[in-house]
Formats: sequence, C-alpha cells, structure tokens
Amino acid sequence: MNAPVFLESARRPIPAGFLDALKAQFKERVSTAHAVCEHHGRDESPYPPMLPDAVVFASSTDEVAWVARLCHQHKVPLIPYGAGSSIEGHLLAVHGGISLDLSGMNQMVAVNSEDLTATVQAGVTRKQLNEEIRNTGLFFPIDPGADASLGGMAATRASGTNAVRYGTMRENVMNLKVVTADGRIIETANRAKKSSAGYDLTRIFVGSEGTLGIITEVTVRLYPQPEAISAAICNFSTLDAAVQSVIEIIQMGVPVARVEFMDSAAVRATNAYSKLSLQESPLLLFEFHGSAAGVKEQAETVQSITRDNGGMDFEWAERPEDRSRLWTARHNAYFAGLQLRPGARASTTDVCVPISRLAECVSETAKELDQASFPYMIVGHVGDGNFHVLMLLDPDSQSDWDESERLNHRLVRRAIDMDGTCTGEHGIGLHKMEFMLAEHGQDALDLMRSLKHAFDPHNILNPGKIIPTK
Amino acid sequence: MNAPVFLESARRPIPAGFLDALKAQFKERVSTAHAVCEHHGRDESPYPPMLPDAVVFASSTDEVAWVARLCHQHKVPLIPYGAGSSIEGHLLAVHGGISLDLSGMNQMVAVNSEDLTATVQAGVTRKQLNEEIRNTGLFFPIDPGADASLGGMAATRASGTNAVRYGTMRENVMNLKVVTADGRIIETANRAKKSSAGYDLTRIFVGSEGTLGIITEVTVRLYPQPEAISAAICNFSTLDAAVQSVIEIIQMGVPVARVEFMDSAAVRATNAYSKLSLQESPLLLFEFHGSAAGVKEQAETVQSITRDNGGMDFEWAERPEDRSRLWTARHNAYFAGLQLRPGARASTTDVCVPISRLAECVSETAKELDQASFPYMIVGHVGDGNFHVLMLLDPDSQSDWDESERLNHRLVRRAIDMDGTCTGEHGIGLHKMEFMLAEHGQDALDLMRSLKHAFDPHNILNPGKIIPTK
Repeated sequence: MNAPVFLESARRPIPAGFLDALKAQFKERVSTAHAVCEHHGRDESPYPPMLPDAVVFASSTDEVAWVARLCHQHKVPLIPYGAGSSIEGHLLAVHGGISLDLSGMNQMVAVNSEDLTATVQAGVTRKQLNEEIRNTGLFFPIDPGADASLGGMAATRASGTNAVRYGTMRENVMNLKVVTADGRIIETANRAKKSSAGYDLTRIFVGSEGTLGIITEVTVRLYPQPEAISAAICNFSTLDAAVQSVIEIIQMGVPVARVEFMDSAAVRATNAYSKLSLQESPLLLFEFHGSAAGVKEQAETVQSITRDNGGMDFEWAERPEDRSRLWTARHNAYFAGLQLRPGARASTTDVCVPISRLAECVSETAKELDQASFPYMIVGHVGDGNFHVLMLLDPDSQSDWDESERLNHRLVRRAIDMDGTCTGEHGIGLHKMEFMLAEHGQDALDLMRSLKHAFDPHNILNPGKIIPTK
Repeated sequence: MNAPVFLESARRPIPAGFLDALKAQFKERVSTAHAVCEHHGRDESPYPPMLPDAVVFASSTDEVAWVARLCHQHKVPLIPYGAGSSIEGHLLAVHGGISLDLSGMNQMVAVNSEDLTATVQAGVTRKQLNEEIRNTGLFFPIDPGADASLGGMAATRASGTNAVRYGTMRENVMNLKVVTADGRIIETANRAKKSSAGYDLTRIFVGSEGTLGIITEVTVRLYPQPEAISAAICNFSTLDAAVQSVIEIIQMGVPVARVEFMDSAAVRATNAYSKLSLQESPLLLFEFHGSAAGVKEQAETVQSITRDNGGMDFEWAERPEDRSRLWTARHNAYFAGLQLRPGARASTTDVCVPISRLAECVSETAKELDQASFPYMIVGHVGDGNFHVLMLLDPDSQSDWDESERLNHRLVRRAIDMDGTCTGEHGIGLHKMEFMLAEHGQDALDLMRSLKHAFDPHNILNPGKIIPTK
C-alpha cells in the first residue's frame, strides 16, 4: 500500500550535539539502533513505519522533563510512547525526532481504596493495574481490548466494552501529572471528586494524543467489584433486530455493564479462532453487574426487550471461567478477523452516532460493505452508538487500500451527518485528520490550533497529529 | 463590609461611539439605567455591586456574536448574565463594560428523547427544562438548588444534590454553541455519547465562567425517570457518625441518588422556616432511584450501615408531595439559615475533599466555627465529599467579615492540604481567585493563563475573574 501524501513531509534536522547531550544523560537508555527505532516508529495502524531518530527510555517524571527541556531548546520533535497499541498512526515519527518510551515507568504510586482512586505511572497497563488492586475489592473498568498503558489510554481518551456503564477515560481520570512542552511539571487537578476551580486542565490533556504535554502519572477512579456478575449471549436473525434491541435497552435506562454487537462474520471468525461454537448469526453479548437481585432484574428486562425484537433465548455464561473465555474471545475478534483472509492486513473504522441513528448507520454501512471486494466484519460497543468495521486487505493491493479508504470516508461522512463523530475511541492520529474540518468546522479547528500553539509554541510535541495544517 | 482590594481596579473607559452603535442595533434592548445596571452588577455573593456601563438583552446567538465583535473591536469588557444566581462574584463588572443578559434566550431547541438528549438556549432554567420534558418520561437531574440557567450552570460547572449519582455539568453537557471573543460561532462537539476527535472543547468551556467564550446553547444528557423513588431521613447523635455513614455508603458503591448532610443548626433553621418538625440533631437526607426492588435493596443496605454507626431508624417520605416538601425545605436551607440571625448577610464556603478525609475536614471545621462570634450552619452534598458552611454576618461589622474570611481561608487550606479543592461547585468568580495559586501551583496557573490569552487575546470576556493577575 502507498503511504498517504501527508506522510511525505520532510523530517526535521537534528541539531549537532543534541544526540550527544542525550547520550551523556541517558547512556545505554538512549538508542539509535534501526530495530529499536522501527519498533517505536509504528503502531497497530496499516501505515508503514516512520522512524524516530532515537528512542529514549525514561524512568521518572524528572527525566521526562529533562528531555522535554532539551527538545524544546533544540526544537526537536518528541513523541511519547506507551504500549504501542494505538491504531490510527499516533506514534509515527512524521517529522522524525525522539520517541520517549515510558513503558519502564510502570510503578504504582498510590492506591487510595477508601476513596476509590489509584495513582499510577503512565506506563502501568490496565491489566497490571487490575492485578495490583485485586485484593482491595475494587477494579478499574475501562477496557479498550488491548493491554494499553494508562498514560496512552488517557492520551487517546480510550474506552471500550465497559464504557456504556462506567464511562470513558474522560469521566474516569481524576488527575494527571504532565510535563509541558518546555519541561515544567504540573498536576492538572487533585483527588476531589468534583471541582469548579478554574479551567479543566485534566480534560484538556485527556485525548490530546501527546500533542499538548506528556502524561507521566494518572489518577483514576476505581469501582467496587460487583457483588454479582452474569453474562449472556443473545442471537438474532438480522443485524437490525439486534441493534434495535440495544436502542430500546439504552432508552429504558437499564444499567448494562457491557453490550457488544458482533455480526455473523465476526462470530464465524471468533468461533474458528477461539474454538467456540456460537451460533453464527448476529449476536449481542451482555454483561450485568450489581447485586444478585439487581443482576437478575436487569437480565429479565433485557431478555424481554430482545424477545420483543425476535431475539432468541439467552445463553448464559455464569461461571467466571466461561465469562472470561467469552470476553477473551471478544477481545481477540481483531486477530480472529485476520484469519478470515490469511495474510491480510486489517484496516479498522471507528464511528459513534446518537443511539437513535445506530440501526440506520450500521445497516447502510453493511449494505455498502457487502459490495466490497474484500471480507469485512462489524463489531461494536453498541450501547454507546459506537461500532467498528474490520476490513481485510491484501497488503500488496493498492485497489484494496483505495476501496477501504473510500468506504471509510463514506462511513465517517454518514456518522457526521447523523450528528456523530469520526472516532468514538481510537483517536485522530494521522488517519482521521482529514475529517477534523468536516466534524468541527473551521472556527472550532482554529480554536484547537490556538490551544496547541499556546501549550506548545515550537510544535515539538507529537507534531503533525490531530490538527491538520491549514 | 469593605470591598476587597481587588475590586478597586480601574474601570476601562468606554470608547466614544460604542454605546451609540449598541443603541442603533438593539434600541430599547440596551439600557444604561442605574437600576438595570445595578441589578446586573451583583449576584448572590456578599460583595457590593460593581455596575456594568450598559446592559444588552440578547435574543439570538447571532446577536451575541454581533455584540462580541463590537466589544472585541473596541476592547470593551463583556459579561454574560443568566439568572444572576452565582455566589462568588462571577457577575460583578470589575472593569465595567457590557452585561449581556441571555435570560430572554429561553427557547427549547430540540428534545431528542430517543437519544436522551435536549438542546436548549442558554437562558432556559433547569426547572423550565424539566417542565418542558415532563411528558417524555425523562428528566434532567442536575440541581444546584437555585433555578439557574443552563448556560450559567455549564459556565460554573454546577452540580448539587443529585451529582453523587448523576455527575456534574462536566459529565452531562454533550455539546455547546459558543460565541468566541472575536464573535465567531462554534459548536464544541456533537451528540455522539463519546468521541476521541481532538481537543475537548466542551470541557474547556464548562467551568470557564464566561472568560473564554459565551455559551448560547447547551445540549445535555437526560435520564429516564426512575420507576421508583423513595426518600428517607436518618438522625444521628453526632456529626461524625453521620459523616462516617456516608463514607461507608460510598465505599460500598451503593448508587444513592442523593445524600445530603445537615447539622443541628441547619435542621433547626429549616424546621422554623419550612414548618417541619425534624428532630434537631445532625441528619442525612437520602433519595433512592431505581426499580421498586432496587430502591428497597439500596435502602436496606444504607439503613444497615447507618445503624452500625448509631443512626436512628429511617423516617420515610414515600409520597411525592412529602418528598417534594422535604427537598424544597433542603433547597431553602440558605434562606432558612438567614433567619438564624435576622438582618444578617450570609457568606458561604464550598470545599470538596476525598471522601476518606470528609469526617476530619467537617469536624475540624465545626470545632473552629464553634469559637466564632456569629452563628453558622453546615450542609453538604456529602456523598461527593462536598460541603458548605453558611456564616451569618452582621452586614455592618467589619470584624464579622474579617473573621468569616479568616475561617474560610483556614477551611480552604485544610481542604487543599487534604488533596481537595477550594470549590466543589460554586466556582472561582472573584472570591476564590486568591486560592488558585495554592491549589494549582504557578506552572498550572500559567497554562490556564496561556489558554485564556489564546482564546481571548484582548481580555474582554468577564475580565478579572478566575485567573489572578500575576
């Protein structure tokens, strides 16, 4: 596949002495080895790698601040790197510069179980966090599938399967420690559950994709582990019936913890990959959290709605190991999907629309995709109006790429026309920049640009991302 | 009471021809009458009025944009005005200029009941909104007590009694129409429930108190009216026992819709003012929302916790009219409190701390207030760690004012030292500006200042608020 035109930008020259200064400070924790740079110059997007000039492995906020000051002084690009699991090109070094690997900053800073909060270094992953707090009776619900770092999840405003009940990183980050473009260290808030004390710096950095500051610590909300959890699968004969059920469940205000949609292709792929025997028709996968009675009540309400829409009887996954197998299978849908076309490279979409438009958006999209020359599958966090198409492309076929881009364009336009967004959770990175104008309009984009300029006047922080050049 | 020093700033001169241009455009909807200016130059704070030079009554976003362009061109201050219910001096025209009254912009723009959203003009009040959507089966839960405008509530990041379950304006505003300092009109987002598409403009304007842009339309989340609602009162012999109960309820994750604390003085005042006969000891006032079974279960869990802490048996308010009387009484606590000292002027505080520190914060505060020379009462949205002290001051006594300010300072420092905030919901306005440095630190404050400069380079939008001058 050809790299898109906006990847052709010239790399910025690295000034003499810059790398020497880095090496003097970080010694073996700075690398210019091709393999290391290549690993840090790519993510899970379909783009070919764009390599940084060097990779620095930071171990503290003070070290991050030191690097930021050096980069600021020399106007060298600086790209924070967590788990490398972003999927829209967030990490690619379009202008070269330094990839700042924070994965070694993986210490728990504090668990305040009485306040239902935890503070972690940015490199702590969500699975690690849940492992660390297992004995407190609390858990951290945000689950984008990948075992992403908390810093990266904050930076992309991640969400995933549990967001329908627990919200996204927007709602669940309480405080951030951030290194500014010129190397100052700030905290954006505190641990009060609510505050009206000035501008919401926390929410400014959540979703800023490393372009406004470098997140080095994250304080998140935790939740009591539910007294009871149950999961159920409900099959439908049509995609529309499944989606219509979700709309009614949300409108009724049932506090489902998860409601995931998979189309027939996704179920087929998941069966093959995860050795399950789910019925290969469109399905919804539910999880209910609450008291034993509450969970039962929720499930009955939901089953009643799904039945009214022609859904089949629930298949229950009561035991923790069955639930775990199901959710692992759901999370592996991406890898399962790749098997629909061996050797394929995947391109994923990510729109989110008001729930009333979801059925129309999904079915129009499926109708178009049925005409495509490559296989696809649809999965979605449908309770939020959010869904993904996985398109399986021949990596050597320009026409596959062009066709997938055309379909993605049409899907995004459809979502925006429905008062929705070009990305529910994956972020803008490189791949969605071209939609920023259509979604926000020129004046709102200009405001974002002025914010970027105010916070990063030399444009060193992950340059070339989010905000399109005028 | 003396006006604090920061109110002495010079008013900016109004350029020749400016008022003529306004009058030509707005005719009888612009006023320089003293009574009108005085009404718009004060709020519910204890400050003496600071009058704008003129008041403009706007009826559309386009008109707001017209005024903003004129003010931008002539560098004249512009202060948006909604219901006038702010309590920290937000509306005072420290530098003179124009008060832009948006109360006439009180039209519903859209109710999307299928999506659980409503879009309203900024002057629509929360009671009006709930009246307008009554027949949809939905409601808007945010309830700061006063019948504030939605624009004002967004601008101060308001919350109130229901926030413990439903969140604050931060979580419940989906989209804003905003007029920028130079008179451009933007929308900050759309109606997708979640989005990762660029910087969070919505959250930048929520809580910005009219200093970054003028909110002219607000899209909020709505919720299904609960199937069952019940309310109960629980009395305690000590303040500590009441607060400790709240801590345990929150830590257990019980989804209470409201949990309000009143100390003995507040109960006594409320009994007198609202003709109730509540037992005059510290109490918690609960409301439970859910299914009939869910409400019962929540209430049983909570009663079990309160009993363990020495709380008395619940007194129930099952009938809607009883609940309504109770909540009206709670909302009138401010006016009731004024009767504790006839002729007094009230000064209110507003801190929020992590829930684990709440008992300590409240009891240390009460101990100090017991030594004060004026009466006080404590009420609080304690489920969020948020509480208020109402101090009843002799309006002619400088020593009362000085003592109340000293006590407020000590309370705020205590809250900040506990990793809390100087304001949970009232906002900064004028009265809390002096705490911004202690709460945020110089570098974070500098970032806020750079944001303000980027969005309002001539400093015309509600100047002299939120960000202290260096």
